[in-house]
Amino acid sequence: MATGEFDLIGQYFTHKSVSRDDVIAGIGDDCAILSVPAGKQLVVTTDTMVRGIHFLPDANPADVAHKLVAVNISDIAAMGGQPAWASLALTLPDYDHAWLAAFSDCLHQQLHRYGVSLIGGDTTKGEMTLTLTLQGFVDQGQALRRQGAQIGDLIYCSGTIGDANAGLKLLIDADNRTALNVEKHALAAMDEAALTDSERAFLIARHQRPTARVATGQVLAGIANSCIDLSDGLASDLQHILKASSCARGTTLSANIELTALPLSSPLQTYISKALWAQYALAGGDDYELLFTVSAENKTKLEQAMADTDLPCTQVGVIIATDIIDTETDDSETAGSQIHYYNNQQLTTLTLQGWDHFNEQ
Amino acid sequence: MATGEFDLIGQYFTHKSVSRDDVIAGIGDDCAILSVPAGKQLVVTTDTMVRGIHFLPDANPADVAHKLVAVNISDIAAMGGQPAWASLALTLPDYDHAWLAAFSDCLHQQLHRYGVSLIGGDTTKGEMTLTLTLQGFVDQGQALRRQGAQIGDLIYCSGTIGDANAGLKLLIDADNRTALNVEKHALAAMDEAALTDSERAFLIARHQRPTARVATGQVLAGIANSCIDLSDGLASDLQHILKASSCARGTTLSANIELTALPLSSPLQTYISKALWAQYALAGGDDYELLFTVSAENKTKLEQAMADTDLPCTQVGVIIATDIIDTETDDSETAGSQIHYYNNQQLTTLTLQGWDHFNEQ
Repeated sequence: MATGEFDLIGQYFTHKSVSRDDVIAGIGDDCAILSVPAGKQLVVTTDTMVRGIHFLPDANPADVAHKLVAVNISDIAAMGGQPAWASLALTLPDYDHAWLAAFSDCLHQQLHRYGVSLIGGDTTKGEMTLTLTLQGFVDQGQALRRQGAQIGDLIYCSGTIGDANAGLKLLIDADNRTALNVEKHALAAMDEAALTDSERAFLIARHQRPTARVATGQVLAGIANSCIDLSDGLASDLQHILKASSCARGTTLSANIELTALPLSSPLQTYISKALWAQYALAGGDDYELLFTVSAENKTKLEQAMADTDLPCTQVGVIIATDIIDTETDDSETAGSQIHYYNNQQLTTLTLQGWDHFNEQ
Repeated sequence: MATGEFDLIGQYFTHKSVSRDDVIAGIGDDCAILSVPAGKQLVVTTDTMVRGIHFLPDANPADVAHKLVAVNISDIAAMGGQPAWASLALTLPDYDHAWLAAFSDCLHQQLHRYGVSLIGGDTTKGEMTLTLTLQGFVDQGQALRRQGAQIGDLIYCSGTIGDANAGLKLLIDADNRTALNVEKHALAAMDEAALTDSERAFLIARHQRPTARVATGQVLAGIANSCIDLSDGLASDLQHILKASSCARGTTLSANIELTALPLSSPLQTYISKALWAQYALAGGDDYELLFTVSAENKTKLEQAMADTDLPCTQVGVIIATDIIDTETDDSETAGSQIHYYNNQQLTTLTLQGWDHFNEQ
């Protein structure tokens, strides 16, 4: 039984949306009509998830919806913003009622959780590709940027890191999958047998059902100098802060990271051998924690503010000036930004394996 | 040679964007940061184009970019809005420099044409799927809605209609394509030989390179009672106005359309037999003209305002109350909305063949 595109939107997406006073018109016209509160600026982000690339082909549709929302809201959180409105572009190979019901139920549940109204979108036919555009507010001039890091800033991250990559590894091993791009993400030397059921579930949930750190981001506005969310892994995302801040300052910034300070969950420490902790914590993506820098003067202010949230933040390093010897390369704006890794205060060398969709082959 | 995702964004999309004072931060952070002018509301729309569904698999990438922008801006135009910002989600099967260069050149050219800044997006790997989210402004409370049609309103459309469908038919015939979904759009009884080269080029351009009617939409704000852009065809899109307006009024509206009034271009009249004119004009999609209704009192005001634009608008019908005999069905909010077709003022019966992605099989 075929059902039309417009029925599809109506049946699954129109009637369950969060009601907000600033949505003058939501789904159902050529555009949504929206009111931005006085004194606020808009923050806007777009993320796409493709089946077989960003999630396993037979992934639970509720997990897919959960992650699609979290990944986008996480970008708003990284700006210190308050999420408000979402547009969903849904490309699907067929009209699968069960899939759509499970997907839309969880999508609405997650949008409700963050107070976000679904204001529009598009449904088309093709390989499963899901794009969400999220809009939120920040107080005028208060957005957290990547580019604000200063020499001497302390580097923090929220929560624990590396869990999502371990969760993905557990899922891949469970089905002995070999044909997936995502497998490259997974590394050897695991001890699944050592995990309890709840530890295993914790790690998998960290991969499938991340939480966007909205409250933490809002606390950081006015305290942190720079911020980014951890989607690609700390090593890669810290480079974005270094590059953006170096470019904004006109001088090259680097960073020192203390490996023993990296916040690892207990299940992760049980599951993977110590030799791989740094790989998971630094190159494992998809944790959606916040990585941010704070001036030394603001350290007490940060600690006081964090006491009001239920998410610990951990200092993992410091921003430094780049040693003159590192800048001999003529590689334009990013010349010389480096991350130095310390193990119990001893400089050490790491080889990390990263992740980039267009570098796979 | 593989090149990373971030290089891709930088190389093709970051540096060519339109500069606007209301873009505090564009591409390069977790979110764009934007300022909405005082007294304005936001209008937001999202459209997806999938290769093989919305454009031919070997379509010129510049044509694809042109249409992607026009289709989205057309939704802003239909609200009477001024387009401002765009986010691009680009899913591509591989890293094809020639395709990306041609696509991004035309994308930027089109965004410049409409004064729109590219503020962000995402690039992912998968079957070619392009989603653009467009944002624009309307004066507070002045957005054109689908839901404002009143009994007695005159129904107008801008430009000429049916051309895009004829252009698609010409493209399909040129390659004797048979395996495409899009072929369903095309009908028999054509006389390609009768067309001059420039007439043929006109029809194909109307399919590949539509123009969003931004200036017309802005003129209509304050004059028209309702408006929609013609993406699915007049018959289908007029139903959206009737349904939305019936729902908003709490009474069922219908429409009379005079077939001899439908504005057909000279190339279209040359190319297709007269028996198919109504099919093309009413069920041919992708023209991206504006369909709108105006009260009889505003007719003179409309004609004066239209004299200042270079796009003619043509009255094609009138909004009527639904005859009581039509409302016997109990089909909820849309009960009884009907379109009656007249041929030289004689009521006539038409069977139109429509278009819906999820009704193909």
